[in-house]
Amino acid sequence: MKNANSFYRPCSGLDLLKHTCGDPRERDRAVLESLARIEEVEPEVRAMATVAHRETALTAAAGAKGPLAGIPIAVKDIFDTSGLVTCYGSPIYEGHQPKSDAAIVTLLRRNGGIVIGKTVTSEFAYMTPPVTRNPCDLARTPGGSSSGSAAAVAAGIAPFAIGSQTGGSTIRPASFCGIAGYKPTLGMLPTVGMKCFSWSLDTVGLFGAGVRDVAYLAQVLSGRQLALSGVSGSPVFGVPDSYPWAAPSMNASDALDMAVRAIEQAGGRVQRVHFAPWMADVVAAHDTIQSYEAYQALGFEYDHHRGDLSPLLAGFLERAARVDTATYAQALVLAEQAKARLVEQFDGITGLLTPSAPDEAPDSLASTGDPAFNRNWTLLGCPCVNVPGLRGTRGGPIGVQVICRPWDDARCLDAAAFAEQAIAAAVGRFPAT
Amino acid sequence: MKNANSFYRPCSGLDLLKHTCGDPRERDRAVLESLARIEEVEPEVRAMATVAHRETALTAAAGAKGPLAGIPIAVKDIFDTSGLVTCYGSPIYEGHQPKSDAAIVTLLRRNGGIVIGKTVTSEFAYMTPPVTRNPCDLARTPGGSSSGSAAAVAAGIAPFAIGSQTGGSTIRPASFCGIAGYKPTLGMLPTVGMKCFSWSLDTVGLFGAGVRDVAYLAQVLSGRQLALSGVSGSPVFGVPDSYPWAAPSMNASDALDMAVRAIEQAGGRVQRVHFAPWMADVVAAHDTIQSYEAYQALGFEYDHHRGDLSPLLAGFLERAARVDTATYAQALVLAEQAKARLVEQFDGITGLLTPSAPDEAPDSLASTGDPAFNRNWTLLGCPCVNVPGLRGTRGGPIGVQVICRPWDDARCLDAAAFAEQAIAAAVGRFPAT
Repeated sequence: MKNANSFYRPCSGLDLLKHTCGDPRERDRAVLESLARIEEVEPEVRAMATVAHRETALTAAAGAKGPLAGIPIAVKDIFDTSGLVTCYGSPIYEGHQPKSDAAIVTLLRRNGGIVIGKTVTSEFAYMTPPVTRNPCDLARTPGGSSSGSAAAVAAGIAPFAIGSQTGGSTIRPASFCGIAGYKPTLGMLPTVGMKCFSWSLDTVGLFGAGVRDVAYLAQVLSGRQLALSGVSGSPVFGVPDSYPWAAPSMNASDALDMAVRAIEQAGGRVQRVHFAPWMADVVAAHDTIQSYEAYQALGFEYDHHRGDLSPLLAGFLERAARVDTATYAQALVLAEQAKARLVEQFDGITGLLTPSAPDEAPDSLASTGDPAFNRNWTLLGCPCVNVPGLRGTRGGPIGVQVICRPWDDARCLDAAAFAEQAIAAAVGRFPAT
Repeated sequence: MKNANSFYRPCSGLDLLKHTCGDPRERDRAVLESLARIEEVEPEVRAMATVAHRETALTAAAGAKGPLAGIPIAVKDIFDTSGLVTCYGSPIYEGHQPKSDAAIVTLLRRNGGIVIGKTVTSEFAYMTPPVTRNPCDLARTPGGSSSGSAAAVAAGIAPFAIGSQTGGSTIRPASFCGIAGYKPTLGMLPTVGMKCFSWSLDTVGLFGAGVRDVAYLAQVLSGRQLALSGVSGSPVFGVPDSYPWAAPSMNASDALDMAVRAIEQAGGRVQRVHFAPWMADVVAAHDTIQSYEAYQALGFEYDHHRGDLSPLLAGFLERAARVDTATYAQALVLAEQAKARLVEQFDGITGLLTPSAPDEAPDSLASTGDPAFNRNWTLLGCPCVNVPGLRGTRGGPIGVQVICRPWDDARCLDAAAFAEQAIAAAVGRFPAT
């Protein structure tokens, strides 16, 4: 991947905290480097919807205090920001300036983080491909809908980025871009001030160079004990023998096998597991819930600005309008029942290990890829981590995903860090952090 | 209450649909009457934050279709409206014009309802008393935080109003103003586009003249079978022998006893029930969750506009900042456990019957009253209905509350309608609908 077409150069947030931002006299250096990197790569990568004003960012960095002091963080343009226009990827909101910050932005700022800019999102975080290109290969999609957030971290624009996931919008782009992506347990991080697509599904997602980076960011933002002090214990991974939603490509299966061998070489254990039959019903429930809620959440835009929606989203909402309340209510009940039975699925294992997506990034910009391997976990509220480090047969990054029970985030991040280190050792390089 | 100081004249939405709005040629009459009533009472009652433009409302009425066609509906100024400024009761948002409608406003419009104006809310739906006065007695608070919505319905400005409840902001003002208030099961109606105070608690609330009115409105908005076709069956009410959160006043106890006698005379059954010990812990959990989440949800306002917050809210948020994540996480776990055990509490009964508030409305405008009898049910997600019809010893309305299991909304409304009719028969008048 070290070719002229590649802008892949993720930078570890933990390293930056140790080496640059640790010294208050150099507090502005990370911001300046981030702005310089934007100038360098942005014409090709197109990760940014808006860039912070240089002086505003430097002033914020100069006064920054806290565990993220001076660290540039890119925020998906689906979250409101008081000082930067927020367009949700839609012409309907061109030039829109919110009055206040989303709660996740407040948490970043309270901890000293510098919002370096807003990242490109697909329209309202749905599936229509935006302009962003994959830093690993400009001819490919970075995935979506958190396209710009994943690309910004992969290209080294910022060590951290905030994204979101309603279907597979964090784990999939992290996999395609070769970085760590973390979708916390549903409800762990606040979605207040995020443009809603589906209130039962919308989840804040985090991006970083490696698993330890996102674990640190998650600990700072959530106030929970999540940062890794070193890889501990010996996790037991459950690898499903088949998937009720889609078959992985040979490419993704091979990557998963490589991860399994690496984990076993590192002393981790791997068991075959089988999904309960009800897991297939969860796929349909996700679709029903997402559709029904989006038709209400984006009701104003659909009813009053339909001509300014992409045909893909307008078509989705048109179909969504036909989902009746009884079907929706059944899907909610099914999801509750599935959550209650989830403990069976994790019996005897630390977490599941599956592909993060059906394949590495598609070889074009015409689609953001397929969230099939993510949707169930979003509805069930399970923490998921994309573990980077592997490459597919077509040369692009391809991630594996660790999935745990809701609120088992610390173990999920720990197990993902174990897998990351095992993979790095097996492929002959060290993880990013 | 038929004194010069009273503007109490609620108007049934169902009656209006039958008699006025049923005839498309008279489609504008309800809007004109609503605007006229605003002119008449608003100088004294002060329920409205913003009134719709006459021509806009009439145009909407002329083209209205659906089960609310032409019906004027007042919307709490905590919900975004694209055509009307939305200030959340705070000077920070003076003149603020949202770009889009809250989802509940979209649902109103899709069903033909006419947003006749925005109603006064206490600042960000917290406890600081706003300017609104109780239509039954101008020297008293209408309750809060949905002060204007309750007052607008009680004064006959609109047959329906939308409010919200995070603690007791729907049931309490309904009780104080002598109208029906309905807090549906948590999550039944969308909070998208509502200014968030606490994402685990915020619930859309509905106001109407009587229980059958709110049941109809709820059915239209939710798409669920909730409208009452006539009082059915013979509900069994559980009356608690004591309350772990506060003792009701003698006044409220007497009202509850009157309701019990009326229900028994009408053929309903009443059982004494005892709250499980864990019910007391839910009170503290509500406080913890509301505080922790508000400090994030209103973080932008607290961090950047503290001087424009009321001392009451600023003090609350200052204390809220000290709630740590571990305490919050424990409260969330406790709430989940309580929800799982809730079925015990409803064993053998249709629903609980309790006071709606510790007393009738306080004799001043200095406080919006006490949400003690509401907070647990908001956290537990239970549907609650304020049943109007009784008067306290000081001459003000005093409600009783029917509470059922989550998603048991149809039975809750049905039981509340039974109680309402029983009370009306006992006090020698017919219910409003």
